[in-house]
Amino acid sequence: MNTQPTAWTYAQAGVDLDDVAQLKRRIATLAAQTFTPGVVGGIGHFGGLFRTPGENMLLVSSVDSVGTKVLLAALLERYDGLGIDIVHHCINDVLACGARPLFFLDYLGLSRLNPAAVEAIVRGIAHACHEAGCALIGGETAQLPGLYRDGAFDIVGCIVGAVWADHVLDGSAVRAGDVLVGLPSNGLHTNGYSLVRAVLGLDDDPQRARALLAEQPAWAEASLGELLLRPHRSYLPLVLPLLDSGVVHALAHITGGGICENLARVIPPGLQARVRRQSWPIPPLFSFLQERGQISDEEMVRVFNLGIGYILVVDAQVGHALPSQLGEGWVIGEVVTSAHDEPRAVLMP
Amino acid sequence: MNTQPTAWTYAQAGVDLDDVAQLKRRIATLAAQTFTPGVVGGIGHFGGLFRTPGENMLLVSSVDSVGTKVLLAALLERYDGLGIDIVHHCINDVLACGARPLFFLDYLGLSRLNPAAVEAIVRGIAHACHEAGCALIGGETAQLPGLYRDGAFDIVGCIVGAVWADHVLDGSAVRAGDVLVGLPSNGLHTNGYSLVRAVLGLDDDPQRARALLAEQPAWAEASLGELLLRPHRSYLPLVLPLLDSGVVHALAHITGGGICENLARVIPPGLQARVRRQSWPIPPLFSFLQERGQISDEEMVRVFNLGIGYILVVDAQVGHALPSQLGEGWVIGEVVTSAHDEPRAVLMP
Repeated sequence: MNTQPTAWTYAQAGVDLDDVAQLKRRIATLAAQTFTPGVVGGIGHFGGLFRTPGENMLLVSSVDSVGTKVLLAALLERYDGLGIDIVHHCINDVLACGARPLFFLDYLGLSRLNPAAVEAIVRGIAHACHEAGCALIGGETAQLPGLYRDGAFDIVGCIVGAVWADHVLDGSAVRAGDVLVGLPSNGLHTNGYSLVRAVLGLDDDPQRARALLAEQPAWAEASLGELLLRPHRSYLPLVLPLLDSGVVHALAHITGGGICENLARVIPPGLQARVRRQSWPIPPLFSFLQERGQISDEEMVRVFNLGIGYILVVDAQVGHALPSQLGEGWVIGEVVTSAHDEPRAVLMP
Repeated sequence: MNTQPTAWTYAQAGVDLDDVAQLKRRIATLAAQTFTPGVVGGIGHFGGLFRTPGENMLLVSSVDSVGTKVLLAALLERYDGLGIDIVHHCINDVLACGARPLFFLDYLGLSRLNPAAVEAIVRGIAHACHEAGCALIGGETAQLPGLYRDGAFDIVGCIVGAVWADHVLDGSAVRAGDVLVGLPSNGLHTNGYSLVRAVLGLDDDPQRARALLAEQPAWAEASLGELLLRPHRSYLPLVLPLLDSGVVHALAHITGGGICENLARVIPPGLQARVRRQSWPIPPLFSFLQERGQISDEEMVRVFNLGIGYILVVDAQVGHALPSQLGEGWVIGEVVTSAHDEPRAVLMP
């Protein structure tokens, strides 16, 4: 039986322009609430307009996505944290160069428009932008039938920040003797979810998966689902006030690749960052996942943040006192001289 | 039978970090070839660094994706044009505000890494960036198993450009009597592909779809597949030289929503842009699709560009001579006074 229409419309092909138009108006209202004095005009132009920062500043930009954490959120129909995830991820990236965020653009790709879910996501984005003084000045919601799996979607963020050219953090200030201060993560942030889904078998049977995620393990203060959906944390409020003093020599955002790969990006040749694995408590969520998946130590280190979401490479004079000054974090290692062909960052027992 | 591994690795869960690391090095080489004097440092920092333009300039930014055109490209294993598509799409958006592009960031989300395809796409991105004097300073390739359909992927681009604050095009310069000059598109650009796939039944049987796309219709100079995959055209070389003279009052990039919706975005209240449908030749590809899908005229206008990729709203003094000056394009209408509640752009017979 041929049930295909004889006269095709875009809506029948899976793209509803009327729904999009309605949603765009609601998104514009949310975005307007994030506007800072730098924004010129509003939403609706072909591009978002923003005043240039001072001439002695550098623009710092980054693009990233929430990744497969969205599948977990879709399973539990809990969309509110995902917007926070992408904004905080992007903020932490430009902050690692010493920059404060100026403006943000979001992209949502999805198979079929679920206006309530999209609005919840954009509400989270707008909230996180507002908190950070970062203007949401552009975005796109694309209905792409056939591209995403049913119910799946991708959330991409692009951020532009600014830093004084002579304050930019690029690793060149790091020297032997510097202290590594690790700041706690809020869970998995946005990395490792494909492995989590595989290990917990979340893709096989939605009902079984929901039941598993509703369980509260003995070691936990919340259900597994809640622990896994906790939003990516922003380190902006904690780290920004430290940047003017010059004691922070480098910053590393611990995302895909884990502690060593990300820390290595800011350690210059001839130096090595040595992280001591026993120097901070690895949250039980990670041990639980490792045991359930029989994941090797090496793989755990490469895939997950293991409880450290951000690392400050700081002057030895102040580094040891920093955790108590900040009210959180741990001294997790130090920088030493090293041969040029040695790895720039290693995890020690 | 349980074929699942007892000791899970990220690679078994569908994410191969080794492949990603190799690919990242090749992408960094391609990106370096696009660098302009504004770029500071290189690839590998947590953010891309770029010098701020002059203080009297505005930053103009936009984010967008190639959309479901990628499914057609995947079907034909022809990935080289997609990078050009996304860069040109983004360039045309910021150009519509009067801005020239400064830098670009790309995001590729995919179900499973196909390094050759990714490299072809990024090569296209780098090529188009280089041609436009736009630096590719950041990007992300995300392996997201379970999120995209098998073989499917999404290509997202984010661009930042700059325009002198007193030269920004926001529609406010448009006045009654202005002439509309339409510039030819290169095909469908990046809009309407979900409808094309539905109309041509491309999703049902890949072999049948490939055979259909290999056909060269009597009216065409190339196969249907080639016509449909032609990259989105950049209007930067044609339009940028016109901007300093002040005769261009507004620009509209014809994307999703078609001629009227996009033109309406730059027409102020109290004015109306009237486009005459008979004033340019609608390419036979569009008539072919309309007939095949029995698509209504209204739907055609909303979904496709109908042969017009960009519209210049120009001073009447120079507008009529512009097509011959440019060597292409047509005068396709004019701006008239109108009641405030009238549509800002209409298509006339």
